[in-house]
Amino acid sequence: MASFRLTLEYDGAGFAGWQLQPRERTVQGTLQEALGRLVRGEVAVVGAGRTDAGVHALGQVASIHLETGLDASTLLRALNAKLPPDLAVVAACEVPEDFHARFHARGKHYCYRVWNGAARSPLRSQWQHHVPQPLEVAAMVSAAAPLEGRHDFASFQGAGSSVRSTLRTLHRLSVAGQAGDEIRFEMAGDGFLRHMVRNLVGTLLEVGLGRRAPESLQAVLGARDRRQAGPTAPARGLTLVRVEYAPPAPVSPAIPGP
Amino acid sequence: MASFRLTLEYDGAGFAGWQLQPRERTVQGTLQEALGRLVRGEVAVVGAGRTDAGVHALGQVASIHLETGLDASTLLRALNAKLPPDLAVVAACEVPEDFHARFHARGKHYCYRVWNGAARSPLRSQWQHHVPQPLEVAAMVSAAAPLEGRHDFASFQGAGSSVRSTLRTLHRLSVAGQAGDEIRFEMAGDGFLRHMVRNLVGTLLEVGLGRRAPESLQAVLGARDRRQAGPTAPARGLTLVRVEYAPPAPVSPAIPGP
Repeated sequence: MASFRLTLEYDGAGFAGWQLQPRERTVQGTLQEALGRLVRGEVAVVGAGRTDAGVHALGQVASIHLETGLDASTLLRALNAKLPPDLAVVAACEVPEDFHARFHARGKHYCYRVWNGAARSPLRSQWQHHVPQPLEVAAMVSAAAPLEGRHDFASFQGAGSSVRSTLRTLHRLSVAGQAGDEIRFEMAGDGFLRHMVRNLVGTLLEVGLGRRAPESLQAVLGARDRRQAGPTAPARGLTLVRVEYAPPAPVSPAIPGP
Repeated sequence: MASFRLTLEYDGAGFAGWQLQPRERTVQGTLQEALGRLVRGEVAVVGAGRTDAGVHALGQVASIHLETGLDASTLLRALNAKLPPDLAVVAACEVPEDFHARFHARGKHYCYRVWNGAARSPLRSQWQHHVPQPLEVAAMVSAAAPLEGRHDFASFQGAGSSVRSTLRTLHRLSVAGQAGDEIRFEMAGDGFLRHMVRNLVGTLLEVGLGRRAPESLQAVLGARDRRQAGPTAPARGLTLVRVEYAPPAPVSPAIPGP
């Protein structure tokens, strides 16, 4: 019996999101199916969080327990050979048996990419949302500033969610780039509500388009009312970049020094 | 009657190359078909050069003549509305009637991207060729240096080509990046032989893998024998970035100043 942490990269376009669903191609389902063929048995995959349909990942994390003698690097190679081209394990390491990809996640880092060229960009459309009208970057930067920190983000929570608390800490919300070119929204925080990144981006884009005043974001936050915020930005622009964990305890007890 | 220069971006994965072919989906064919629907007549499209099946473009150039009163920005919008998601016109400008996308091209700039991570990268596979073994970048940089300049590149010409001269000037051949990460080969020159970029990259990758000495490239060049060079690197890593032209003559005669 061995436990592993898998770091996953996927192109979200071909998946109905992370979570296992009957009759849908999902990341969790595809991974469980490949692991099942590898070890000839059922394997439960726990993800750090659910990504929505169309959302990409460069560093999603999953934890698994295997009744096998495979070491991490053999597992990585063997599993990648069974996975489709749009899903890969980019790192695998053995972890203590109690490691849980969701419960032990300390934070996440997302990147939302917008292509602000006047014309469509076929080579960028895979993971950049196209906004053809010129965006005012400085206005979005100033609108984003008060959102950093610990706040009740209820105004930015998608419908159909039932979390106990909507308080979250946004360690970083940066907007960088140039009008007419690529603009990136980077967000790092201790946790994100359903659609929170995409709702924040959708609201900031309204600021960039001059449809909403930069200083109005404070009031949107305070209202705790989803109707005060802007639309949900499309999934294809969003990538889960990284999941943060506390440094893991060593798998074997450390040998006392001389 | 008006003449236009179109700058085109496309994802090469879904095209059997640039050139019109019966029963194949090609960039030229798709563009001619869309233009035909737009102006309700046949339109001949001249490209700056042929890209192979699977090769991408950020700045391919085409010239057309239209019997229409459309201005360049209307043409750009109307044409993009008729083109599929993997092909777009990113710029359109009116040019003198004698402008010819191929004959007047002064040079081209290509970029070849390699993903050197140990694992497959689903989000990079669209336009990066995966080489999992660690590449020695310094060896490739030193091997590339003597290739810059005016040379007979016959050793790097793909079979089935019948150009008069295989002399070309490579203004720039840079190799940049880090082992384990993305490595980019940038090439700019006055013209490129069939498969020349991909054959240069395939040969340099052999150097990076330690299968060929960096100093051997000089001899490969001198041999003028395709069998001396390495394999043709896969199309998906290659992007035609830009085609260079002399600054165009003004469309209308300039009005003499006061």
